[in-house]
Amino acid sequence: MKRVLAVMVGILMIGFLLLPGCGGGESDGGDAKPVARTTNGNGLGGDAAQVAKDRDLTPDDVVAALKTYMPTGRHDPYIMFASGGHSGQVFVIGVPSMRLLRVIGVFTPEPWQGWGYGIGNEILADGAIDGHELTWGDTHHPALSETGGDYDGQFCFINDKANARVAVIDLRDFETKQIVNNPIALNDHGGTMVTPDSEWIIEGGQYGSPLAGEYAPIDEYNESFKGMVTLWKFDRKKGRIDPSKSFAMELPPYWQDLFDAGKKVSEGWIFGNSFNTELATGAKEIGDTSFFEAGVSQRDNDYLHIINLKKAVQVYEAGKVEKIKGMPVISLDTALAEELLYFAPEPKSPHGVDVTPGGEYLVVSGKLDPHVTIYSFDKIQEAIAAKNWTKEQYGVPVLDFDAVVEAQVEVGLGPLHTQFDDKGYAYTSLFLVPAVARWTLGGNYSDLHDEADWELIQQANCHYNIGHLVAAEGDTVSPDGKFLVALNKWSIDRFFPTGPLLPQNFQLMDIDNTGDDIKLLYDMPIGIGEPHYAQIIKADKLDPWKVYPEIGWDPVAQRVDINAPQPGRERIERNGSTVEIYMTAVRSHFVPEHVTVREGDHVIWHITNVETAQDATHGFALPVFNVNLSLEPGETGTFEFTADKAGTYSYYCSEFCSALHLEMTGYFFVEPKQQASR
Amino acid sequence: MKRVLAVMVGILMIGFLLLPGCGGGESDGGDAKPVARTTNGNGLGGDAAQVAKDRDLTPDDVVAALKTYMPTGRHDPYIMFASGGHSGQVFVIGVPSMRLLRVIGVFTPEPWQGWGYGIGNEILADGAIDGHELTWGDTHHPALSETGGDYDGQFCFINDKANARVAVIDLRDFETKQIVNNPIALNDHGGTMVTPDSEWIIEGGQYGSPLAGEYAPIDEYNESFKGMVTLWKFDRKKGRIDPSKSFAMELPPYWQDLFDAGKKVSEGWIFGNSFNTELATGAKEIGDTSFFEAGVSQRDNDYLHIINLKKAVQVYEAGKVEKIKGMPVISLDTALAEELLYFAPEPKSPHGVDVTPGGEYLVVSGKLDPHVTIYSFDKIQEAIAAKNWTKEQYGVPVLDFDAVVEAQVEVGLGPLHTQFDDKGYAYTSLFLVPAVARWTLGGNYSDLHDEADWELIQQANCHYNIGHLVAAEGDTVSPDGKFLVALNKWSIDRFFPTGPLLPQNFQLMDIDNTGDDIKLLYDMPIGIGEPHYAQIIKADKLDPWKVYPEIGWDPVAQRVDINAPQPGRERIERNGSTVEIYMTAVRSHFVPEHVTVREGDHVIWHITNVETAQDATHGFALPVFNVNLSLEPGETGTFEFTADKAGTYSYYCSEFCSALHLEMTGYFFVEPKQQASR
Repeated sequence: MKRVLAVMVGILMIGFLLLPGCGGGESDGGDAKPVARTTNGNGLGGDAAQVAKDRDLTPDDVVAALKTYMPTGRHDPYIMFASGGHSGQVFVIGVPSMRLLRVIGVFTPEPWQGWGYGIGNEILADGAIDGHELTWGDTHHPALSETGGDYDGQFCFINDKANARVAVIDLRDFETKQIVNNPIALNDHGGTMVTPDSEWIIEGGQYGSPLAGEYAPIDEYNESFKGMVTLWKFDRKKGRIDPSKSFAMELPPYWQDLFDAGKKVSEGWIFGNSFNTELATGAKEIGDTSFFEAGVSQRDNDYLHIINLKKAVQVYEAGKVEKIKGMPVISLDTALAEELLYFAPEPKSPHGVDVTPGGEYLVVSGKLDPHVTIYSFDKIQEAIAAKNWTKEQYGVPVLDFDAVVEAQVEVGLGPLHTQFDDKGYAYTSLFLVPAVARWTLGGNYSDLHDEADWELIQQANCHYNIGHLVAAEGDTVSPDGKFLVALNKWSIDRFFPTGPLLPQNFQLMDIDNTGDDIKLLYDMPIGIGEPHYAQIIKADKLDPWKVYPEIGWDPVAQRVDINAPQPGRERIERNGSTVEIYMTAVRSHFVPEHVTVREGDHVIWHITNVETAQDATHGFALPVFNVNLSLEPGETGTFEFTADKAGTYSYYCSEFCSALHLEMTGYFFVEPKQQASR
Repeated sequence: MKRVLAVMVGILMIGFLLLPGCGGGESDGGDAKPVARTTNGNGLGGDAAQVAKDRDLTPDDVVAALKTYMPTGRHDPYIMFASGGHSGQVFVIGVPSMRLLRVIGVFTPEPWQGWGYGIGNEILADGAIDGHELTWGDTHHPALSETGGDYDGQFCFINDKANARVAVIDLRDFETKQIVNNPIALNDHGGTMVTPDSEWIIEGGQYGSPLAGEYAPIDEYNESFKGMVTLWKFDRKKGRIDPSKSFAMELPPYWQDLFDAGKKVSEGWIFGNSFNTELATGAKEIGDTSFFEAGVSQRDNDYLHIINLKKAVQVYEAGKVEKIKGMPVISLDTALAEELLYFAPEPKSPHGVDVTPGGEYLVVSGKLDPHVTIYSFDKIQEAIAAKNWTKEQYGVPVLDFDAVVEAQVEVGLGPLHTQFDDKGYAYTSLFLVPAVARWTLGGNYSDLHDEADWELIQQANCHYNIGHLVAAEGDTVSPDGKFLVALNKWSIDRFFPTGPLLPQNFQLMDIDNTGDDIKLLYDMPIGIGEPHYAQIIKADKLDPWKVYPEIGWDPVAQRVDINAPQPGRERIERNGSTVEIYMTAVRSHFVPEHVTVREGDHVIWHITNVETAQDATHGFALPVFNVNLSLEPGETGTFEFTADKAGTYSYYCSEFCSALHLEMTGYFFVEPKQQASR
């Protein structure tokens, strides 16, 4: 028996490298006895009918089940990138199966991927504000990088509303590469959006504040408080924002909300919403009931912000800026003098402005008005040329409403955001109905549909209280249609209750049809964050790495680290009271398996996962010192700490990697000071 | 228009309290035009057939889709609690839809639920080790509380392998209430499991270590390194572990692995596995290739640990313990003298020991042996009574293998863990095939099936490399059968690749049948952690709160906080340089909306969410100071910090709560020292 087992161990150790399916390609079904995957037009046999009957499924339920089900090994044709709200992360979801494929650690440390526990610590540290470490974010609006106004699958940008920060995710490895702080702002609901070639990442503010977060009393609101929009320059080659080539523009202290970039005919311009043009300052004392919610909702109109970005860049490049905490800022006076900024009235308290695929129209939803208001970019240009404006209190030209509006469509209560499809329809979320409104575009889009232009076609119910909505590539120059997801804020009775804290509800809808035929397909609970916005990209536009390109890859720099530990070159080096460890990991051992230091030593620990097989990830857990790495094949990681507590610590692989995974361990000895002998 | 809008604002504000579905009960379908949900035996119409054909779905795929699909608003009949591995959390998943309903923050801070960002900070702080803050854990084995050996739906316990900690989750609100550190150990793979009435929570160790993590050189392994198992006393009334009534038992420095509690006939005993009975110490120098993986796998047999818990409790209560760092420990000598501990040989390097529903048998899988080995509890008792043993090097009696074994079943390569159903089948995960093996039990279970006893019936393939598996209530005294989930460690090609880091794969299988008819139903990616073990409970055994019982509820103490802010009693109190804020939150404002302190003040901030409607959660985000709360209806939370940076900070509700959610904000002013006037 002994020999048999010894042979078996050998097979186990080698055999693991020959995993079924390792070579790529799709494996067949998951049954013990695989069934040939033949198409069968009458595939719905008695078994299926019986199941439908037993489970009380309606014909619509059956169709929905069949439209969303993914047999084992089949990949979703669309991938959704959703913000995680105050989870601080980004979620990657397969569409139409609505399966959560991955959480990407962004502003919040996440130990499964080692993010902030030995991996990426320096990136997270860059996100600190004036020495205040931040370990979360409020991610709102992901923006996939674009080329020619279409998603190109290379990067994803995301903002942190709570602290006015922007992160860059590289879609080769789906990991965060950069976090930049906005030095002049502390909140940035209006980010991120990109210009059609991702040269600029737009970060708008939200609540009026003194620039740079300085103290000013509320009584000085009108003078000392400001709005802003920041344009971050993206260096695609380096895969990083270049703060040294970025700038901001001061705006009146209205609460700027979402922005969108012009595209095609409107390229070179950006558009943003605002609310609290009332300049309400809230209930100043306890007992006072003049709350923001009332004060901010008084006026019939707020201001659509229309910004000539192309010209603003010229002004910035000409040096007509003042530097605030190092950030070049175009003052409001300069913006007006240089004719960079215009307003147009917009029905009250809008939440989103969305540019049509061809760039011809801007769709604005005033959430306290049941209409969407459609502005014509051409008419805006004509009004500007004709100086058809009045000026508001800060001197900004306000274009004549009737001169710039193309149409208004009554879509229902609480309209928020709009997306587009390939059939000439627009889709607007109605928070209060709650529903998704399908309505028809006019102009160039008339030929795409058979219905009347600018007309409500359907309100498709949601459960409940939809915020954003997202259609496949629905904010690009070439929307795909097919699927739409309603990002519902309340779920109430939709799922089994998990205590008083309930998940959000992503509802997938079938929009691959015409007329009033939108169908609900699937309810996906999100019990891990509160997504605000999402984008859906065709999966085949993404080309992620399956393993890192070379052994010893530094994912922060995205290149081989020439100092990375390599097989055969593992070592422990002491330099005074600093000990540097060069370790490798492979199924199923670390080299070295014993590391000894002295109490008080500073330890710098490098580990390379030398695997080349896809999915051969190793973890590295070290107790007490709060370390956990996730090292994907080829990846190298470095962490450091002070060994300030004598003891015997088992380190181990925290990712179940092989049959001998539990044996993948070692001892870290910290010799007590009085005993240290070496 | 002005009046119309004013009326509408009013409707919005009030109407939100009358949300559709708020009153509970199931709403109907999600289409714009609801379809009567009638049962239709011929429900599979031409549309469904066309979809199946277009999507190339096999008849098995169609059945699987219909068995797992949940129409909107229908609740999953089973709820799975899965560990999150090195994510440090617990995942709550609906079965059979395999939808992630909620992540429960346990050892890792998680801002969406406010966990560690103002909520639960003191619980997380309790998890520090000797002043070393720990912000992650490696959760392995959740244990639902039991009454009479059946899940009772009240609590969930979970261990942190990396730092030997145990947490308690209250299933009324699905939140973590306690984290205890094991003072004598630094790793605890063998936790948590409960005794049939949850009096004791079992926490076994893993890698041999000096007790209390003291330093000892590796050459002293045999003498100075120890194994251990800890029995934490659970006070069900308080909902807390009582460390003052808990104790541990010293074991030889073999690497103890999983434990299971005896039940019914074997109640009062606990059973654990071990490996590295070779006492291998790994490769001591770089260049040495005597790695743990080889050294630990040499012997044909390791030792099943058989512990008389009932008697051990008596020994502990009699004070026959030594205290190590405050923990009462029964020494190995005492354990032997008091006849608490026995061994039985078990085929090599086992991973799991699983007790059959009636408690008659223990199933052990030596992962380097293709058999499962079934021990008879009766025979073990007979062998103990007859002293049919030899003694191993530490003096522990080793029962005669042939005398205690009931059967061995050749199930396949890499057997790890076993679960049970209601039809007399056992299911064992086969890491290397990879597959789930279905085999028949004998003895009392023979009458439940028509097949031969102790016989392999089917290997159902997995994708790929299954670790644990879990059947519905499959480790209780009354398993349900129906569904089984394979917790696969590698997914490779199953899902669209999200970079080099891939999700795990939970595969749902249909076991509601007999013979070799196990069918794969669904692949669920887990891209947020690496679950090890899970338990599946009938949903109707859970009775979570929909809102907190009273306004001002402190979820840590699970009672009303008499000092919690209440509506009408909001205030700001200064006491020297400490400012205490009593704030309430309601749709859609905070009271107060302005808070002013002086630079350097210590701020203690209390907030109560005064909502009573289900799902009316409010967040509270404060920039720079790293605060984010999630306050469920009725909940009160308190956080504190030093206002060490002058400035103007907008705080806001971070959970989209209403149409006027963005307006739910306020200003926190920190007056500069030189300006502070009050």
